[in-house]
Amino acid sequence: MLIIMKLESPRSDIDRVIAKIKEMNCTPHEIPGSSKLAIGITGNMQFIKEEDFQLLPSVSEVIRVTKKFKLVSREMKSDDTVITFDDSSIGGNVFQIIAGPCSVESYDQTFEIAHELKEMGIKFFRAGAYKPRSSPYSFQGLKEKGLEILSDIKSKLGLKIVTEVMNSNSISSIIEVADIIQIGARNMQNYSLLEEVGATKKPIFLKRGMSATVEDLLLSAEYIASQNNFNIILCERGIRTFETSTRNTLDLNSIPVIKQWSHLPVFVDPSHGVGIWDKVPPMALASIAAGADGLMIEVHNNPSNALSDGYQSLTPKRFRELLKKINDICSIVDKDFYYEK
Amino acid sequence: MLIIMKLESPRSDIDRVIAKIKEMNCTPHEIPGSSKLAIGITGNMQFIKEEDFQLLPSVSEVIRVTKKFKLVSREMKSDDTVITFDDSSIGGNVFQIIAGPCSVESYDQTFEIAHELKEMGIKFFRAGAYKPRSSPYSFQGLKEKGLEILSDIKSKLGLKIVTEVMNSNSISSIIEVADIIQIGARNMQNYSLLEEVGATKKPIFLKRGMSATVEDLLLSAEYIASQNNFNIILCERGIRTFETSTRNTLDLNSIPVIKQWSHLPVFVDPSHGVGIWDKVPPMALASIAAGADGLMIEVHNNPSNALSDGYQSLTPKRFRELLKKINDICSIVDKDFYYEK
Amino acid sequence: MLIIMKLESPRSDIDRVIAKIKEMNCTPHEIPGSSKLAIGITGNMQFIKEEDFQLLPSVSEVIRVTKKFKLVSREMKSDDTVITFDDSSIGGNVFQIIAGPCSVESYDQTFEIAHELKEMGIKFFRAGAYKPRSSPYSFQGLKEKGLEILSDIKSKLGLKIVTEVMNSNSISSIIEVADIIQIGARNMQNYSLLEEVGATKKPIFLKRGMSATVEDLLLSAEYIASQNNFNIILCERGIRTFETSTRNTLDLNSIPVIKQWSHLPVFVDPSHGVGIWDKVPPMALASIAAGADGLMIEVHNNPSNALSDGYQSLTPKRFRELLKKINDICSIVDKDFYYEK
Amino acid sequence: MLIIMKLESPRSDIDRVIAKIKEMNCTPHEIPGSSKLAIGITGNMQFIKEEDFQLLPSVSEVIRVTKKFKLVSREMKSDDTVITFDDSSIGGNVFQIIAGPCSVESYDQTFEIAHELKEMGIKFFRAGAYKPRSSPYSFQGLKEKGLEILSDIKSKLGLKIVTEVMNSNSISSIIEVADIIQIGARNMQNYSLLEEVGATKKPIFLKRGMSATVEDLLLSAEYIASQNNFNIILCERGIRTFETSTRNTLDLNSIPVIKQWSHLPVFVDPSHGVGIWDKVPPMALASIAAGADGLMIEVHNNPSNALSDGYQSLTPKRFRELLKKINDICSIVDKDFYYEK
Repeated sequence: MLIIMKLESPRSDIDRVIAKIKEMNCTPHEIPGSSKLAIGITGNMQFIKEEDFQLLPSVSEVIRVTKKFKLVSREMKSDDTVITFDDSSIGGNVFQIIAGPCSVESYDQTFEIAHELKEMGIKFFRAGAYKPRSSPYSFQGLKEKGLEILSDIKSKLGLKIVTEVMNSNSISSIIEVADIIQIGARNMQNYSLLEEVGATKKPIFLKRGMSATVEDLLLSAEYIASQNNFNIILCERGIRTFETSTRNTLDLNSIPVIKQWSHLPVFVDPSHGVGIWDKVPPMALASIAAGADGLMIEVHNNPSNALSDGYQSLTPKRFRELLKKINDICSIVDKDFYYEK
Repeated sequence: MLIIMKLESPRSDIDRVIAKIKEMNCTPHEIPGSSKLAIGITGNMQFIKEEDFQLLPSVSEVIRVTKKFKLVSREMKSDDTVITFDDSSIGGNVFQIIAGPCSVESYDQTFEIAHELKEMGIKFFRAGAYKPRSSPYSFQGLKEKGLEILSDIKSKLGLKIVTEVMNSNSISSIIEVADIIQIGARNMQNYSLLEEVGATKKPIFLKRGMSATVEDLLLSAEYIASQNNFNIILCERGIRTFETSTRNTLDLNSIPVIKQWSHLPVFVDPSHGVGIWDKVPPMALASIAAGADGLMIEVHNNPSNALSDGYQSLTPKRFRELLKKINDICSIVDKDFYYEK
Repeated sequence: MLIIMKLESPRSDIDRVIAKIKEMNCTPHEIPGSSKLAIGITGNMQFIKEEDFQLLPSVSEVIRVTKKFKLVSREMKSDDTVITFDDSSIGGNVFQIIAGPCSVESYDQTFEIAHELKEMGIKFFRAGAYKPRSSPYSFQGLKEKGLEILSDIKSKLGLKIVTEVMNSNSISSIIEVADIIQIGARNMQNYSLLEEVGATKKPIFLKRGMSATVEDLLLSAEYIASQNNFNIILCERGIRTFETSTRNTLDLNSIPVIKQWSHLPVFVDPSHGVGIWDKVPPMALASIAAGADGLMIEVHNNPSNALSDGYQSLTPKRFRELLKKINDICSIVDKDFYYEK
Repeated sequence: MLIIMKLESPRSDIDRVIAKIKEMNCTPHEIPGSSKLAIGITGNMQFIKEEDFQLLPSVSEVIRVTKKFKLVSREMKSDDTVITFDDSSIGGNVFQIIAGPCSVESYDQTFEIAHELKEMGIKFFRAGAYKPRSSPYSFQGLKEKGLEILSDIKSKLGLKIVTEVMNSNSISSIIEVADIIQIGARNMQNYSLLEEVGATKKPIFLKRGMSATVEDLLLSAEYIASQNNFNIILCERGIRTFETSTRNTLDLNSIPVIKQWSHLPVFVDPSHGVGIWDKVPPMALASIAAGADGLMIEVHNNPSNALSDGYQSLTPKRFRELLKKINDICSIVDKDFYYEK
């Protein structure tokens, strides 16, 4: 349920609504960034009625939220969520790109790629220090050592860092370096981890699970939002189907569905979504045309020797060519893309 | 296997190769529209060796085709297949649109939509006279009466007609009116029907089955091509997955995969692929960006009263707005789209 | 809608109900084998009300059928459908087996297998003369020649023949030899073919399509039943999922669902459902325990040289061992299985 | 790779092999319960050759393991793994049942169900204290309070407790009460958690993820085994497909596949696998016939008021009826089931 307050409501009236919600053993959430002041209510709502709030002073409207997810729904907040950083932002009219190698493999490899991306105007750099792999015998990432490399590169190049967290033990060291914390597809329903990263208030990049419906994805985002952290970026990265000619089936239908149901920005990861480098560019462009707010793309300076996912990585040269086309498509779908030619 | 003949080979040398193929109980296929003269061989190839042909006069090269599909593969023919009509074409650099209502419901409804589309510059009109429906109690189409309406509209408006065939009994009456025969998703593996429509030499619009892999789709196209009919248009229209927020899961990954594996043009049907009219425009644009050669889009003058699929149909007004954006995206991906503003 | 007539209703009252249904432009169906006389109504029911029939003489009850499928639903007919043959039956308390090779390959191969099965007490023999294959270059069956072989074996051994129809052209020759006509998974939604085989009144063995829901399967059965042919046997044969360790994913959940929703008998084809011969026996036993009315099993005297599906075929020796276990499980789930030790 | 030692090898020879493995920066694993003494090797094997070990004293044979999973594969250990408890066991010839409510809801509810199950001879009791739920607003379990209730019931009734762990924080309190730690489907690829529970050496009940292949499941088990914990029970609980008539699609094909590929015991959870209580009994029986080593079944004394999953729970009365049939089927597939009539 959502309580819309009148414009210029005195703080005392707002506090009265909040107190009333707490009295009823539910949780109030002041919805950030709304054009109007709105207070969401979550918890066991079976005894709450619209009338309990309609007559309180300064209350303009009371709205039932029909979806199972509440705080992340468009019904709760009609404006797009925009996540701001010092010199850039994600969501709204801006189109943003997160690029980098699958894993931190060494200082030199990571620095070289980061440096090239920086020169192309990329602001968000991805690279995994902790790698969830299906087999315990595959490369599992450089872990703490990888974080140190990322920290060094961040201070040298001024890139914002996006890196994955796999468990609660590593959260404290990851938030030292990460500007955005990534939750991988396999942990999308690791609810304990969602709550813990939510509580850090850092922006969270939440990847859709391989068998998660759009509703499941938004319910997982709700776990983060229920910690009063609305800085969530959703990411479509392909689902599991019977088709075997590509690594996953990129479900671009999900983009307009998410944009309708939720105020959160949504990215696409075509590298995982198709799994073969030469098909990444068309799927990247298709994602923009479908309405995505950004892309996460794997770029590697030496794909054939990458320790993970080389087959789906673009070389910096091919990535640069793609950027030009991204810029062109953005102009048609009215997205602002700050690309330095 | 593919025999590439030298440029300006005398006809007698070509005939000698063809005779040799027949001697070995296989079938020769002269591949149309190739830059080089090429002769495909299909059938039981286990006793055929490259050497059998390499030394024949005028033979330039002998190539093994590695895919299960042969005649429709890029290995057999590297150039894009272009299907030409009197005043238009499908495939190659051209972007084409097939639009119209799901079903012929009445003369007036069909004429009104066709007329509006004609005015927008649309050249290919779709409407079903025979409708395959999951339930025997749903509207099954006007059948023969529907074909008469289409024939009348064709002669009045000069539109090219695309309509579905459901069984062999109706082929003869459908080819009287259809410029392109459509095979629906549910009949994609009705091999008898594929061979019969292949034999008509009419262009065939082949929709991907709901659980067909890209390889299955190309093998079904091969049934048509094996009748020496290369005028085949493939169509991605969504596959069946666990996701329920959309009618099907549009698999746009299949577009770059098909373009790599086959020389045939590939269309996308976003109306069936997403199943909700307000999500058709973004998915239409995404299809172009992914590399499609055309779109099939359902347009209805009165969607809420349509006898079938109204929920996924655009009104002519919304379709006209979409055309402008289609034109813009085409210019970026280097497709020629003849849109009359 | 279903009209239940009182016991010993005079024929004139029944005819009056039927006439009334026709007056309303709907189709009456006398439901066979019911304990009570019941008349189903199908067609466009939007103007029909319960009251139209409730007061007619001899009418006992009027029931709305809630499922999309009508004639094949349990609501229409609560008793199990039993299909009777001269010396055997399918459905109800009886457990029945249809066995044989995937294809008729030669007289000797077919006769040898049929003879061994006959000696084990098998009454229903399967073998395909027409084979729908994904590739046009795979063995397509012996066609007419295959039917002749089956006809010969039928007269010599007295086995009942189950064989697949692929198109309407071959229906007339197939019904000469087949006791049960099989519709393969790829043709489950070939509605024209369903209506045509329905009209023959022969028993129909309808396989579930690879991406068909249970509801889709029952709607396809409804196409047959709407031709007043209730002799339908459903068959679960595996659906298409992301799992690749088996050929298909056998959906045994569908068995109790179908038994609840429909009065039709349901078989399982574990040979296609799992696709690997050594896993056929456990899945055959599981099918019985789940409540199936019978099994279709591929048996070949020389699996490694079979022209199709050898990898999933049992040898006669292994099939004989399985029969003993089938007999044991049947006794526990109260199915009568006539197995001659 | 697997080193098979000769019978009665002196300990010094075994230690020499182990030392050699460590020298090569790999990890040795003495495989428990094998008829022959075997030492598995895992880690980066690219520089290891068979010859490095073949000539060491007491080495009988060196075997390459072809599957991606190693320690859990049949190639590493051909005998079935049997997990022993004081008065019972899991795996091998024994058929075992784990029953109980989805969640601990209160002391009375839990005790009442546990007491009834105890009287029926059930030895393993399941009930969740921590509940992973798609929505943050659903009942999340009684948590610590739930564990106290389970501890109390364990000491009063002597049942062995199976309960789920959701995160590393709660492992230490869960191992105080749990005899078997459950990893839920949503955490099947939470590799950090797998390693942590593996290190406890407690038996682990590992549920298959909704979109996990059998290979994925065995690779997740390998994470546990790589902690030298071989006490792993796998559980098939249904996968996600397009079918919506049941909650999940129970993939019983996986049972014979797992039995062939791995030495670990495999259970089936038909309650989640089908999701509707009246279809649980047939699917339970089918699981046994398919070769399962046990069942996990939800039993609730008041299903219609259960706080979670009531719709798929059996009443104690219906569960008792099912036990009799389970006993009958076990006798046919040669499983020992200790059922007290």
